[in-house]
Amino acid sequence: SNMAQQSDKGSVFADLTPEEFSATVDYLKKNLDTKLVSAADAKPTENCIYYVDVKYPPKQQVVDYLDRGGEKPRREALAVVFFGDQEEPNITEYVVGPFPNPSYHRDITLEKFNEKLPYHRRPVIGKEYVDAYDLVYQKEFSTAPQFLKALGYDGSNFAALTTVPRGFQSGDRSTWFVLFLKMLESCFAVQPVGLELLLDHKSLDVSKWKVTKVFYNGAYFSNMAELEKQFNAGEVEVIEIQKVTADNDIGSMNPKVTPQPGAPLQFNPGGNRYTVQKNQVTFQSWSFTYGMNANSGLRLFDIRFNNERIAYEISTQEAIALYGSNAPGGMITRYMDGSFGIGRFSFELVMGVDCPYLATYIDASHLLESETPETTKNAICIFEQNLGVPLRRHYSNMHSMYYGGLASTVLIVRTVSTLINYDYVWDFIFYQNGVIEAKIHATGYISSSFYFADGKEYGSRVGEHTLGTLHTHFINYKVDLDVGGIHNSIMTQDMKFDPFNIPWEPEAKIQRPKVVRSVLETENQAAFELHSKVPRYIHFSSNATNKWGHPRSYRVQIVSFAGDYLPEESPVEKAMGWARYKLSVTKRKDEEGESSSIYNQNDPWNPTVTFSDFINNEDIQNQDLVAWITVGFLHIPHSEDLPNTATTGNAVGFFLRPYNYFDIDPSVNSPDGVFFHSK
Amino acid sequence: SNMAQQSDKGSVFADLTPEEFSATVDYLKKNLDTKLVSAADAKPTENCIYYVDVKYPPKQQVVDYLDRGGEKPRREALAVVFFGDQEEPNITEYVVGPFPNPSYHRDITLEKFNEKLPYHRRPVIGKEYVDAYDLVYQKEFSTAPQFLKALGYDGSNFAALTTVPRGFQSGDRSTWFVLFLKMLESCFAVQPVGLELLLDHKSLDVSKWKVTKVFYNGAYFSNMAELEKQFNAGEVEVIEIQKVTADNDIGSMNPKVTPQPGAPLQFNPGGNRYTVQKNQVTFQSWSFTYGMNANSGLRLFDIRFNNERIAYEISTQEAIALYGSNAPGGMITRYMDGSFGIGRFSFELVMGVDCPYLATYIDASHLLESETPETTKNAICIFEQNLGVPLRRHYSNMHSMYYGGLASTVLIVRTVSTLINYDYVWDFIFYQNGVIEAKIHATGYISSSFYFADGKEYGSRVGEHTLGTLHTHFINYKVDLDVGGIHNSIMTQDMKFDPFNIPWEPEAKIQRPKVVRSVLETENQAAFELHSKVPRYIHFSSNATNKWGHPRSYRVQIVSFAGDYLPEESPVEKAMGWARYKLSVTKRKDEEGESSSIYNQNDPWNPTVTFSDFINNEDIQNQDLVAWITVGFLHIPHSEDLPNTATTGNAVGFFLRPYNYFDIDPSVNSPDGVFFHSK
Ligand SMILES: [Ca+2]
Ligand SMILES: [Ca+2]
Ligand SMILES: [Ca+2]
Ligand SMILES: [Ca+2]
Ligand SMILES: [Cu+2]
Ligand SMILES: [Cu+2]
Repeated sequence: SNMAQQSDKGSVFADLTPEEFSATVDYLKKNLDTKLVSAADAKPTENCIYYVDVKYPPKQQVVDYLDRGGEKPRREALAVVFFGDQEEPNITEYVVGPFPNPSYHRDITLEKFNEKLPYHRRPVIGKEYVDAYDLVYQKEFSTAPQFLKALGYDGSNFAALTTVPRGFQSGDRSTWFVLFLKMLESCFAVQPVGLELLLDHKSLDVSKWKVTKVFYNGAYFSNMAELEKQFNAGEVEVIEIQKVTADNDIGSMNPKVTPQPGAPLQFNPGGNRYTVQKNQVTFQSWSFTYGMNANSGLRLFDIRFNNERIAYEISTQEAIALYGSNAPGGMITRYMDGSFGIGRFSFELVMGVDCPYLATYIDASHLLESETPETTKNAICIFEQNLGVPLRRHYSNMHSMYYGGLASTVLIVRTVSTLINYDYVWDFIFYQNGVIEAKIHATGYISSSFYFADGKEYGSRVGEHTLGTLHTHFINYKVDLDVGGIHNSIMTQDMKFDPFNIPWEPEAKIQRPKVVRSVLETENQAAFELHSKVPRYIHFSSNATNKWGHPRSYRVQIVSFAGDYLPEESPVEKAMGWARYKLSVTKRKDEEGESSSIYNQNDPWNPTVTFSDFINNEDIQNQDLVAWITVGFLHIPHSEDLPNTATTGNAVGFFLRPYNYFDIDPSVNSPDGVFFHSK
Repeated sequence: SNMAQQSDKGSVFADLTPEEFSATVDYLKKNLDTKLVSAADAKPTENCIYYVDVKYPPKQQVVDYLDRGGEKPRREALAVVFFGDQEEPNITEYVVGPFPNPSYHRDITLEKFNEKLPYHRRPVIGKEYVDAYDLVYQKEFSTAPQFLKALGYDGSNFAALTTVPRGFQSGDRSTWFVLFLKMLESCFAVQPVGLELLLDHKSLDVSKWKVTKVFYNGAYFSNMAELEKQFNAGEVEVIEIQKVTADNDIGSMNPKVTPQPGAPLQFNPGGNRYTVQKNQVTFQSWSFTYGMNANSGLRLFDIRFNNERIAYEISTQEAIALYGSNAPGGMITRYMDGSFGIGRFSFELVMGVDCPYLATYIDASHLLESETPETTKNAICIFEQNLGVPLRRHYSNMHSMYYGGLASTVLIVRTVSTLINYDYVWDFIFYQNGVIEAKIHATGYISSSFYFADGKEYGSRVGEHTLGTLHTHFINYKVDLDVGGIHNSIMTQDMKFDPFNIPWEPEAKIQRPKVVRSVLETENQAAFELHSKVPRYIHFSSNATNKWGHPRSYRVQIVSFAGDYLPEESPVEKAMGWARYKLSVTKRKDEEGESSSIYNQNDPWNPTVTFSDFINNEDIQNQDLVAWITVGFLHIPHSEDLPNTATTGNAVGFFLRPYNYFDIDPSVNSPDGVFFHSK
């Protein structure tokens, strides 16, 4: 049949439920031989649960279960615990299981990472920020009352933005906090006040933290006291913060005209043509499961067309942004969003703007920095969309008069994550002809620096004192295609012109295009650097052939406008090393499950996951393969990025397209087909 | 105001009306001192009107009229006349005017082309094809009755497809006709029978035409008689044509399942939010005129936002496809669609598939190979589309709790042209934030060769005897941006990593991204070869600056998956020389109005318009500039191209994006803005 069959076996990929999160916490609190404090209150010297997620069984077990009547794998959780209160403070990862009533736990840190996880690699939790802000606003600010008064600080009108990385070598934990003007109904991130403070918060003893450098409007000072001294000596020119009014608020999204309903809308005359049951979705010939990782975001599993698996997993892995600026916080910034939480910050979607009114909205739960799970309402939407363009059509007016066509309607799974200032719209799109598209749109607020001196070398001035700073976005996806079975090879196709003597006119020569094919043998051959020449067609291909004798395959087509990635001599380059490659294909391993790690952000000099280690020249012929795809764009901000970057032109992603996989386009089986003729 | 103002001045760009076409024909028939025959019946030795179109006044005159209260320019036609009945047969171009009552004509051939146009460059008209088919099916086929019987020819079941170019040197007119099986409700183009004939139709005396070569299933013969002889001698293996049934018709678009209504549809609760008056369109802040050239397709003029002109002209120029094959017709094919008629073959659009039901459908008229104009009903559609994605949005959950966003609805102007087998969907898209997108989707049937021997070196086998042959599509656009006035320069921006010693940590060094800008001085600097490294940002910039001191500009962002273009040593390379360049910017000239010519197809060895001549190192600083943009994709067909190539992944085009052109994103003035907050 070409309609997807329903089955509940996909529940093996389900995110943990609130009950399962709580059971994990309860189990750990009872069974870890130590005192656990809620992360919401934990001091650096205490122990706390940082994060809990589902722990997937090994792929082999799952596939045995799904395809071969194997036993249902046990359901387990992964729990990340911060141990500040130990001889050797560290991060430990446990597996806890089985649900519904956990009865065992196992420390998997060493087997997973081949090392213990030093405590300094831990993500900064809310409590650590609160302590940092207390120090800045209370202790440090109290040493510069005159300067702050002249600047326009009123005791509560500043917002601080953290930057990363936090230093220059392993073990450092020194953060530049950039100060902005808080806005009432608009965003602070485009209102820098010119002041930035470097706080060393490495010590586990909060009382030992201190501000080690201050930046104001182009000049550096030892601390706020020195800035105050120089200010009082008349050596600092202060640019007083101006009141931002509705009129000159470059960040305001309050419409300048009275909103008027009337924009075109979609309706579904036949009701929903897809089903969503628990974590499992069907749409015509498609079926798949969806889930959300609090760190890395959306993840789909067991993606099938006509009930045959095409991909075991398609998931977002990481998003980074590398900035340039003439101000300190801006110039060092390399955000790894996964360590902040792409899924965690996927907030409630707004009907009619983020997704159509008639979409299906689904809640998502996570447990992070807390002992109780949090549920975000309407965090994921699923809807069918008429793209307003034919998927295919032909109008025949020669020899035979007919018209055939098919409107392109697709199923879209979407989340939108807001990482402080900017917003990413994450889409997975399923077409009626067997194509899957992954697409990310960037929107939200740009990040900014205080505009001074040679600021324009680092972007555009977009406000009175606002420099929109250049940066380059990179996003990494994991694509575990299983095309016609688990064992695949990478085939490439391209063209070349082949000078050819014309058989019927021997003096004439033409430049004849010809197909050039090859099969890549090793991981190293399949690691394509960001701006290297890549064969125009890259396929996951099977040993099986279609009706016409060609290997059944899926083509990977990448759409990206990426800027440059860091040179390899950069000491943080390896921490985001997947961004070196536009595409790399590796032999799939359960132990190489993710291209990034939440521990990389705070110790990029000694990355917990070094993606480039995955590429060790293993044989990739007739193996279970995974593609790691990097897309991105260079963003040199401009005035039209205010109030928000528009999604137009800022969308990148990739297509997975059947290529000699079927014998004919499977959309011939669509119920939407149109055909008519005249005699 | 940020609403577009209506004015009828845009009628200066209107296509000719049926009355104006007829008045032109009447005038020429009365005033040309020669006998004109209708092209529908014209022998090569007769004179006929080939084509009539509007003749635009020089840009300066139009701009004076539009902007400076200048006189309304005279309305004129361009008429192309084939003179077969002259001492020196030739093609002549006339200007005829003024409308409504033409009273003068002027031969502009020499001033426009700097040469007379030799008769052999003329496009092949319907009558010439009819004569050619007569010769093939009647005279030539009569010499091979046994072979044709064995093949399965029944006297009327073959369709012939013309290929181009027609020879190897200037003056040649020898065409390979590839024979296919006619289908009742499906397309012949994917059912090759293996037989191809080379017809020399150079002579103006039709009785002297003759078949000079025949190809069957891998072998060449002098003519059908020789094929017959060898067949009778048992030296030719014939593959008998099999009856194509509904079951095995790879070209059938007849749905395999019962169509069921129920796909999502769009409706416009507030009615249309755009106006179409004659050739003039407004949509919120946008206004522009549209028209259709029978040869080159859609053309827009006087595109304004907030009543300020952004572009004088945006138009399609040419579409080409270069094929490879092991069969003769396929291997030599280089189609230039403009010479067949991109606009001429833009047939009636089908509501609900080609465009939404609620679109505005507009007729288009042309005069080609006839003395009476032809009107295609519903050839153009205009509609507003909700893209189902936010144009921009932000969810603030720090310091201030609010949400702002705007659903992305756009205005789309579309035509779909069917050039024999394949279909191009041509879109111009207007966004609420001042962005214009041009997008072309490819669909329809692939072209094919008979599958034999090493066919797979040239594509994929997609049917029993069908080889989908590789080819590369290239499309050229003319984009006459006038950004902040007529005088523009080309600014580029990109990034580089600049190693930088950290001011607050002198032993530390970072790789800091920095903006690299330049202004291009000459046409040669602004001619970017297809696969050369192009700066990531390319701008048409003005001398005027926005509020923040940056040059007001529009950025050109190209989306293309182009294959390789012909090496320059190819003798036909110059005829499509625009395809050498992904982007080139030239000084605008009325006399360099088009990048291609309808005369290039039949004499590519001596092109009438040689695009590369436009690029002669002229100064492009502070000048009226035009961008010529080439997009395309490499198409190695596969089974899923049957029955039709899908638009998914086969869309290319470009964005024109305001960049420091406004002081802030103009979509803040949209009536669709959404904003709410909580305290
Ligand atoms: Ca490996
Ligand atoms: Ca795989
Ligand atoms: Ca020039
Ligand atoms: Ca211009
Ligand atoms: Cu950005
Ligand atoms: Cu094609």
